[in-house]
Amino acid sequence: MDIQFSNDEFLNKFGEQVRSIRLKSGLSYREMAQRCDLDYSYISKIEKGQHNIQLSTVLELAKGLEVHPQELFGFEIIPIS
Amino acid sequence: MDIQFSNDEFLNKFGEQVRSIRLKSGLSYREMAQRCDLDYSYISKIEKGQHNIQLSTVLELAKGLEVHPQELFGFEIIPIS
Repeated sequence: MDIQFSNDEFLNKFGEQVRSIRLKSGLSYREMAQRCDLDYSYISKIEKGQHNIQLSTVLELAKGLEVHPQELFGFEIIPIS
Repeated sequence: MDIQFSNDEFLNKFGEQVRSIRLKSGLSYREMAQRCDLDYSYISKIEKGQHNIQLSTVLELAKGLEVHPQELFGFEIIPIS
């Protein structure tokens, strides 16, 4: 499986996935921020693909959403056939 | 699912997962480094949990191992019951 994905696309897809899980959980930015060690405005920028976050932040997002970190990467990746 | 995991544990588990996928694919550090935009010595430090890498590096590791990034997070997380 050869992967064709730019960094920007990857950050955007990751952000969309965080947003979709957050909305499905019925959490606002502020409610999510209270559950983890992240500022609500930072969460909104991550959702817009504006931050190339580190693994420690991935862990915080997973804590805030109460999901396994693996779920944050549950989006389509375009393989090069 | 409340998550109880320190950053260090998370980085270590992530590194172990990268290592296990690499070994299953029969790739050496150098062979893997040739498939992606990462230096082989950096890969070995990531596998030892010594780097709090960014999402762009997660994507490079997935390209190097030819797996979906989600697989790099396929390890146990200890939920607090």
